[in-house]
Amino acid sequence: MLSKSKISFINSLKIKKYRDIHQQFIAEGSKLVMELLRSSYVIKEVYATAPWIIESDQSIVPGTLPVYEIGDWEMAKITCLSSPSPVFALVEIPNPRKSMRDPGSDLVLILDDIRDPGNMGTIIRIADWFGIETVICSENTVDLYNPKVVQATMGSIARVTVIYENLELFLQQLSDKIPVYGTFLGGENIYGKNLDNKGVLIIGNEAYGISREIEKYVTERLFIPSFCSFESEDHKPDSLNASVATAVVCSEFRRRIIR
Amino acid sequence: MLSKSKISFINSLKIKKYRDIHQQFIAEGSKLVMELLRSSYVIKEVYATAPWIIESDQSIVPGTLPVYEIGDWEMAKITCLSSPSPVFALVEIPNPRKSMRDPGSDLVLILDDIRDPGNMGTIIRIADWFGIETVICSENTVDLYNPKVVQATMGSIARVTVIYENLELFLQQLSDKIPVYGTFLGGENIYGKNLDNKGVLIIGNEAYGISREIEKYVTERLFIPSFCSFESEDHKPDSLNASVATAVVCSEFRRRIIR
Repeated sequence: MLSKSKISFINSLKIKKYRDIHQQFIAEGSKLVMELLRSSYVIKEVYATAPWIIESDQSIVPGTLPVYEIGDWEMAKITCLSSPSPVFALVEIPNPRKSMRDPGSDLVLILDDIRDPGNMGTIIRIADWFGIETVICSENTVDLYNPKVVQATMGSIARVTVIYENLELFLQQLSDKIPVYGTFLGGENIYGKNLDNKGVLIIGNEAYGISREIEKYVTERLFIPSFCSFESEDHKPDSLNASVATAVVCSEFRRRIIR
Repeated sequence: MLSKSKISFINSLKIKKYRDIHQQFIAEGSKLVMELLRSSYVIKEVYATAPWIIESDQSIVPGTLPVYEIGDWEMAKITCLSSPSPVFALVEIPNPRKSMRDPGSDLVLILDDIRDPGNMGTIIRIADWFGIETVICSENTVDLYNPKVVQATMGSIARVTVIYENLELFLQQLSDKIPVYGTFLGGENIYGKNLDNKGVLIIGNEAYGISREIEKYVTERLFIPSFCSFESEDHKPDSLNASVATAVVCSEFRRRIIR
């Protein structure tokens, strides 16, 4: 049975201010909770329906982890989803800095003010698929632990290290030898470009692209050409969605590894 | 001034049944309405705020098209958006079959039960960017004229021809010489595969992939390899989002044109 104060505590975690105070976030759904249990994330408490508790793989649930059985009507009071899942976890926000990758030896993604939670989660999922283990976000990028972002990562949050930084300071400290890639509506055609699988790759904001302050650090300007045959300037696609562009660019980097 | 019956008529178009009866759909936002005005779509009526009417490029608004000035409070009664735009149009649903491309000479996209409006709109936008002019959808794919789909196309609805078909019948009638590509979690690594820029490319449902009835028509099984270094079967990304996978595959097809 969930107490009123517990319900109110859990619901407060839907707001960034309270996640920061309590250093906890919400994860829902069997796949996501299982992924987090298998990762280095520390789960504080699990709330689940009786069928989930019976069917789940208890071998990965640590003996010290409290798993509370709750009813569907209780789940409805705490869920962020339109159709509640059978399992809900409270998870500790970790300090991610210790597992950050070195852009001198591996490709690191930088997000310059990604605002949409769905895009953000999808980008984390794309990074995971393409083996990009570190994502560095501007301070105005949507919070990783926003429940919609957590959900949209589809479990990839368990494997990708996400760090919030002042991007200008971060880029200033990078060695000159490290390439800084950015995607623009003009630049070098990515398909014919030589791409190193190290350095940083900057993805711009959904509406404004890469900001002016950040653009000056870009050493390699990339663009994804359009194949649309409509010729008029007024009657052609403007751009690709930010997460879609991220996927195309990451795919271009990675395919060169196996050529 | 919008009459009560007009408001009720417009709101009915948010439901597929009424769009089918009236053969009209809703488009909102300056970019989208302008794109539709420049296309072969027939706009029936435009509702706009005074500032939009003053600032818009009147040269592309046909003289016979009624443009009604309405207030923000009236826009709030008909909009589908969380923050209303200054322009709203009622548009005729066209018969798209006349402009369908031949998969014998060009790449055609097939959607096998895409259900999420955001994915559907994003896929149309991707098709537009990569110059894929025809998209054929299974009868259970979300309706193109669902306001969320229209919005997510970001204007690409004005250029891409979308047709709903019984996919089995369509695929049965295809010549043996036309390749039928499908993306799966196993198959030939797309990066090393020879890809013709003609034929059909099938994208499966978000949760279930390509259905069994459709899978048997696939002649070329493709997969996008993951570069995630986590080895365990239980602790790695499952898949890419349907629209993201579409983008990666379309990019792979098109880049070969310019190699």
